[in-house]
Amino acid sequence: MTASSTYVVGVDIGGTNLVVGAMPADGSREIGVHSLPTQAVLGADSVIERIRGMIETTIAAVIQETGARREQVAGVGIGSPGPLDRERGVVILTPNLGWTNFPLRDRISAAVGLPAVLDNDANCATLGEAWLGAAKGGRNVVGFTLGTGIGGGLILDGRLFHGASDVAGEIGHATIEANGRKCGCGNYGCLEAYASGPAIAMRAREALAGGEGSLIPSLVDGDLTKLTAAKVYLASAQGDAIATEVVKETARFLAIGVANMLNIFNPDVVVLAGGVAQAGDTLFVPLRAEVRRRAFKPAVDACRIVPGALGSSAGMVGAVAAFLEAHPVA
Amino acid sequence: MTASSTYVVGVDIGGTNLVVGAMPADGSREIGVHSLPTQAVLGADSVIERIRGMIETTIAAVIQETGARREQVAGVGIGSPGPLDRERGVVILTPNLGWTNFPLRDRISAAVGLPAVLDNDANCATLGEAWLGAAKGGRNVVGFTLGTGIGGGLILDGRLFHGASDVAGEIGHATIEANGRKCGCGNYGCLEAYASGPAIAMRAREALAGGEGSLIPSLVDGDLTKLTAAKVYLASAQGDAIATEVVKETARFLAIGVANMLNIFNPDVVVLAGGVAQAGDTLFVPLRAEVRRRAFKPAVDACRIVPGALGSSAGMVGAVAAFLEAHPVA
Repeated sequence: MTASSTYVVGVDIGGTNLVVGAMPADGSREIGVHSLPTQAVLGADSVIERIRGMIETTIAAVIQETGARREQVAGVGIGSPGPLDRERGVVILTPNLGWTNFPLRDRISAAVGLPAVLDNDANCATLGEAWLGAAKGGRNVVGFTLGTGIGGGLILDGRLFHGASDVAGEIGHATIEANGRKCGCGNYGCLEAYASGPAIAMRAREALAGGEGSLIPSLVDGDLTKLTAAKVYLASAQGDAIATEVVKETARFLAIGVANMLNIFNPDVVVLAGGVAQAGDTLFVPLRAEVRRRAFKPAVDACRIVPGALGSSAGMVGAVAAFLEAHPVA
Repeated sequence: MTASSTYVVGVDIGGTNLVVGAMPADGSREIGVHSLPTQAVLGADSVIERIRGMIETTIAAVIQETGARREQVAGVGIGSPGPLDRERGVVILTPNLGWTNFPLRDRISAAVGLPAVLDNDANCATLGEAWLGAAKGGRNVVGFTLGTGIGGGLILDGRLFHGASDVAGEIGHATIEANGRKCGCGNYGCLEAYASGPAIAMRAREALAGGEGSLIPSLVDGDLTKLTAAKVYLASAQGDAIATEVVKETARFLAIGVANMLNIFNPDVVVLAGGVAQAGDTLFVPLRAEVRRRAFKPAVDACRIVPGALGSSAGMVGAVAAFLEAHPVA
């Protein structure tokens, strides 16, 4: 890294945590990455002030670690839950943060005196994995982000695809069951209603109501309202039959979502990131087998289906990439 | 039209009929469009010979109607059922035509001594509607072709999107019912298994098995194996309760497929072409209402959902456009 490199700060805004860090434009390293609780309950001004402080801390780290001048920091990429209006830099609505028509991009830009670019959090995570992670080298990439919800991002011919009004990639809200479970989005039978973290916990609670013996209650001190997807996977790893059935069903639901994207979009990489994807072979072996049963062979043969490689940095890395897509460095 | 224009021949190969015609590169008119039965049972050589004759007839019409010279015909665009390999110009498999690894493009090219381009039939129909039909002006367009099967095409950022191995756009083979009906493709619960012409007829037969009185049997001389989607729509138009319920369910299934594409791709136009789409308001009014209930509001607000405007010419027009995409006219 020479002192003349350009650096970009990436900001990943989650409902729970903020992740901020910087990278040189060639993506060769991460600098000053750190995380703080979002604490949205304190209000938007407080969150902006926290982000401003984290960006300044990151810029100080860039200067200290590389010898760069502040002017070598070209700007800030921001990944935020949506829906949002990228052109205006406005978050239209984020239930988790309580923001409505909030000019997030310009507030951050003004706070630190740098140009900024706003994109959807799942788009950023997908872009990060495609730039430097598990989907590197992919020209057409579908990213699933598995967590409290199921988000997604589409990279088409090497660039993020946003659609007509920045909604593209909401692959967690495609119906896989015509008369299925009610989803938080208002629709019925969405993939998210079956395979998000809370949906996995709910299906496990329903299976337990059947009354068979299970390890699961002992993992949550008998309080099933505390049950999480991670505990279900833990119980399955310990041989619990009910948990194993729920885990198997989760792979099947996710496989339907993945197979649909193979037939619709025919990507060369599908990357699954986030909590559930950390289950490794327990998820990916049955998932790939079910995808092979469901999707067209030329689509299956053309596609790698892989877990994300960047962990909790994916959104930050992708926010840097989103800034660089909008402001290419000569 | 001046005598110096460039002309392109479009060939649309269907399981039942061949449609061939020509257009000037500006798309201002259709010349010499005619249709003949495909008669695939006579074998591939016979189909190629028939197509060759139709192309020559079309070129003769161009010369006669416009005064152009034969050299002004730049080439041939071909739309064929798939899957296919565009780069090699090969049809990998078409059950309806009985072709396997058939070098369709080069056979036609050699037969008429003109360069040729091969693309999927549903891609061509979508491209035709986007160039000159109901989706004109659309930058991101999803096309559904409703018939014996349900095909699809994606136009993203103004160009046909093919994916990694020319499978992209198989939107009739996305699962809408996780444990649903077996589909001809081997998967379960595909949209095609609910809303193709034969699937509509099958659902009507199942509803009739319930035993209620219905007009439907009288429309097929009591032989329900002769039932078609068109007869079901006819019975519904005459007030038949069972047919009306099947028609309503069809709109709902199609709406799920359309709503999924709105959340995944956020297009500015969805165009539905082919037989079922001719039902007009009977289909489109409930379909649009159900899409509005299911898809994200910014995606619904950004999108027109319209019937195709080019009728049986759509594939031929789109085949011309596919040739022009590959061989732009100066």
